[in-house]
Amino acid sequence: MMTGDAYRAFGLEETPDWLARRAERSADRLALRAGGKDLTYGELDGLAARAAGALARAGVRPGDRVAALGPGGSLFAVLLHATLRLGAAIVPVNTRLADQEMEFVLKDAQPRLLVVSDALRARGEPVPRALGLPSLAAESLKDGQPAPSRAHQLTDLAAIIYTSGTTGRPKGAMLTRGNFYHGAMTSALGMGTLPDDRWLLCMPLFHVGGLSILLRAALYGIAVVAHDGFSEEAVRRSFAEDGVTIASLVPVMLRRLLDAGVAFPPRLRYILLGGGPAPRDLLERALAAGVPIAPTYGLTETASQAATMPPDETALRVGSAGRPLFLTELRIGSESASLPAGEAGEILVRGPTVSPGYWRRPEATQQALRGGFLHTGDVGYVDRDGYLYVLDRRDDLILSGGENVYPAEVEDALCRHPAVLDAGVFGLPDPAWGQAVCATVVLREGCAASAEELTAFLRERLAGYKLPRSITFRDALPRNAGGKLLRRQLREKGDRS
Amino acid sequence: MMTGDAYRAFGLEETPDWLARRAERSADRLALRAGGKDLTYGELDGLAARAAGALARAGVRPGDRVAALGPGGSLFAVLLHATLRLGAAIVPVNTRLADQEMEFVLKDAQPRLLVVSDALRARGEPVPRALGLPSLAAESLKDGQPAPSRAHQLTDLAAIIYTSGTTGRPKGAMLTRGNFYHGAMTSALGMGTLPDDRWLLCMPLFHVGGLSILLRAALYGIAVVAHDGFSEEAVRRSFAEDGVTIASLVPVMLRRLLDAGVAFPPRLRYILLGGGPAPRDLLERALAAGVPIAPTYGLTETASQAATMPPDETALRVGSAGRPLFLTELRIGSESASLPAGEAGEILVRGPTVSPGYWRRPEATQQALRGGFLHTGDVGYVDRDGYLYVLDRRDDLILSGGENVYPAEVEDALCRHPAVLDAGVFGLPDPAWGQAVCATVVLREGCAASAEELTAFLRERLAGYKLPRSITFRDALPRNAGGKLLRRQLREKGDRS
Repeated sequence: MMTGDAYRAFGLEETPDWLARRAERSADRLALRAGGKDLTYGELDGLAARAAGALARAGVRPGDRVAALGPGGSLFAVLLHATLRLGAAIVPVNTRLADQEMEFVLKDAQPRLLVVSDALRARGEPVPRALGLPSLAAESLKDGQPAPSRAHQLTDLAAIIYTSGTTGRPKGAMLTRGNFYHGAMTSALGMGTLPDDRWLLCMPLFHVGGLSILLRAALYGIAVVAHDGFSEEAVRRSFAEDGVTIASLVPVMLRRLLDAGVAFPPRLRYILLGGGPAPRDLLERALAAGVPIAPTYGLTETASQAATMPPDETALRVGSAGRPLFLTELRIGSESASLPAGEAGEILVRGPTVSPGYWRRPEATQQALRGGFLHTGDVGYVDRDGYLYVLDRRDDLILSGGENVYPAEVEDALCRHPAVLDAGVFGLPDPAWGQAVCATVVLREGCAASAEELTAFLRERLAGYKLPRSITFRDALPRNAGGKLLRRQLREKGDRS
Repeated sequence: MMTGDAYRAFGLEETPDWLARRAERSADRLALRAGGKDLTYGELDGLAARAAGALARAGVRPGDRVAALGPGGSLFAVLLHATLRLGAAIVPVNTRLADQEMEFVLKDAQPRLLVVSDALRARGEPVPRALGLPSLAAESLKDGQPAPSRAHQLTDLAAIIYTSGTTGRPKGAMLTRGNFYHGAMTSALGMGTLPDDRWLLCMPLFHVGGLSILLRAALYGIAVVAHDGFSEEAVRRSFAEDGVTIASLVPVMLRRLLDAGVAFPPRLRYILLGGGPAPRDLLERALAAGVPIAPTYGLTETASQAATMPPDETALRVGSAGRPLFLTELRIGSESASLPAGEAGEILVRGPTVSPGYWRRPEATQQALRGGFLHTGDVGYVDRDGYLYVLDRRDDLILSGGENVYPAEVEDALCRHPAVLDAGVFGLPDPAWGQAVCATVVLREGCAASAEELTAFLRERLAGYKLPRSITFRDALPRNAGGKLLRRQLREKGDRS
């Protein structure tokens, strides 16, 4: 390209430590409100420096992995920043994993150190003990000697987050510092970033949604308001008192807030609604209530958001997850050229937020990233203007009597019934149909509806081949930490009436 | 660093075309208000696509350079985006250059094409004609066939901007697309970016300050309000009617606005004050008036801002240009470690906004970038907390009687006299002192002051060796397009009474 002298363009290989630099600039600004306590950026940075010292004394070196078992809230934020400060990567381990799963994850990740919360230690944490991995009490992180900050190399790993996928062993999605940095930037190019933004999180911080927001907040210099799990009352109070401007929710949370009549404050400018396609009736209710809903499509492997609908356009294309983020490229069905508008195929994603692959899984990596695009395993289509509509996990598609049935469509229709709070639809082997459409339904408190009544309700709305052959009632649906419905678990339980 | 499988982390090598992607998302949003006309992002994108077609037809190919002679306002913005869309770089040529300078720049830059405004064509543009370079009327850019957009390779050049420096021939500072992209991001991490921001520019768009804001605006999706030169009345109107939230000014403009009693609107959140150190009295006046002043240190070679003071801290450290931007590293005096706080030395800058060097000037490039830092030629110091204080161009330092005299300090003191509107201080050879301190002063309209009176005024404020041996009165001071005082011109004119 150069006709003159050769020159070496400077890329962005490294950045200063995000938290340290933020603390330099905004020491007195609120960083985190969690568990009834506030931390400023100066305080969070001081804690992270001490925690980094404690980790280093325990042997953590650049390139290592630090597994986090249990610490939540501000302890998790401190551990995250401390790990990054040392040039290491964090491996958040879901404490709800079964023993066998936890053992697999801990063996696979090869952490230098486990950081375990007191609560878990009290429970005896049998798996880590059995593995003989060195561990550190999360509460002792505050006792370290402050370690100096160092530059973030953007190609270095920041986190390995295990996803159970739909089949087989869990896989550790590797996320680099660059994935999070560029994710923060490309998201800001869509949403803007206001110095007084406050971001409400009601899901675990160790999920990609929480982790990425903690890192973004340090870059932007804004505050995170973190709840320990979801409760309508806590959100109501936060909306009233915490100056929340952005909230990350999953559909079932939004539905419960609307049901509870929670007032959405005028300063709230974005509700990022992720964790799977949102039922249409829910979107319509939220829109009618004037809530700034931004349906979002995101994955662990894209360090959170991949596409987002601006709230002022949600009403114009109900059901869409918006366009890809500024720096993100989408393809439907094929790496070389998308299928025509309206035609459904696998969603492929490319861009600087995409994971470099799965930890120690070269085949899975190659398979997922073939052709330079992340093959998400989700099925969707784009409309003429490039807006994405996510239909389902490809593995969740039901083939019944030679027809494709998209579970989300049936769930959507079920949720329109006034007695239905939540619904999960899945396929089970069936000698006559290949697969039979099955549904598990959660009713609203104090409401009643029979399977026959729901089927009659659906019959007016859906083609006959989409109607569930079986409807089961339960108190709750299995969802992962990010709020995604685990249809696989429904399938495996064979939830069939 | 990797103990598991090798993996390839995705960096940010390319981005979508900024304007095209912005237009996709925000077609109806205001992009540019200039010359009494508004362009939305959809309109600007359409014009840029046509202009790219016209340039391509005229032979412009990826890696080429397109010289811009004269087109201003929206025509310049269209040409800029069209040039980038083709993978080429723009070379804005200052039309006020003397024939010899212009000839040098045009020969040096080796443009594939000159784009010349009608106004200049009418004047005959003797230099380009003499050089026999192919040219295109700027006005004909609208007649092209729309060219498709393509990805921006971030290491590709976006612009070559000639700086005259203090001695010798002009040098073309190369700026990559990455320099501008990362500049936009790192600036946003300090200032935030609000979807309804409007950025006022009263300096030429072809200056690095203008050019970088045009590109940032497309990334952020905000509007630029561009004036054709500076006038108090036009700014007053813009402040009242255009919803301006950010303005880029140089000190003399700010002084004139304050003198004229222009009202600063409440929505205004940042006045980026660049183009050389701001006199302390001016900062104090602005602060007293509640103006959100953000003194800034920037250079062509850093794609504009390198350090910026947040307006809410300006009053706490009057005279500082703030800290380096989020991704920018500063050193004073030495690449390895800064001089101690308070000690003055050359300002060195490193980061992703730093130019890869000077076009076809390998020695100058090597000299400027030795040790991996840009050697700015400016002298300054940082305080204990890392805030930068810019003193002067190193080449402007006056050595008088064995003492260092910083011209800006003397100018500062002169500007505190109520009759003084502007002042330039420089050294001239002197047999007795080595160099003699000399001053050129512009008085306010309707004010009078003699050299003796000013000297008496200074004597109360400055050490004797800093007092000008000569004070000359003029109607204006020579400044470049970015508002920087050209002390070299004062020196060369030997402006001595």
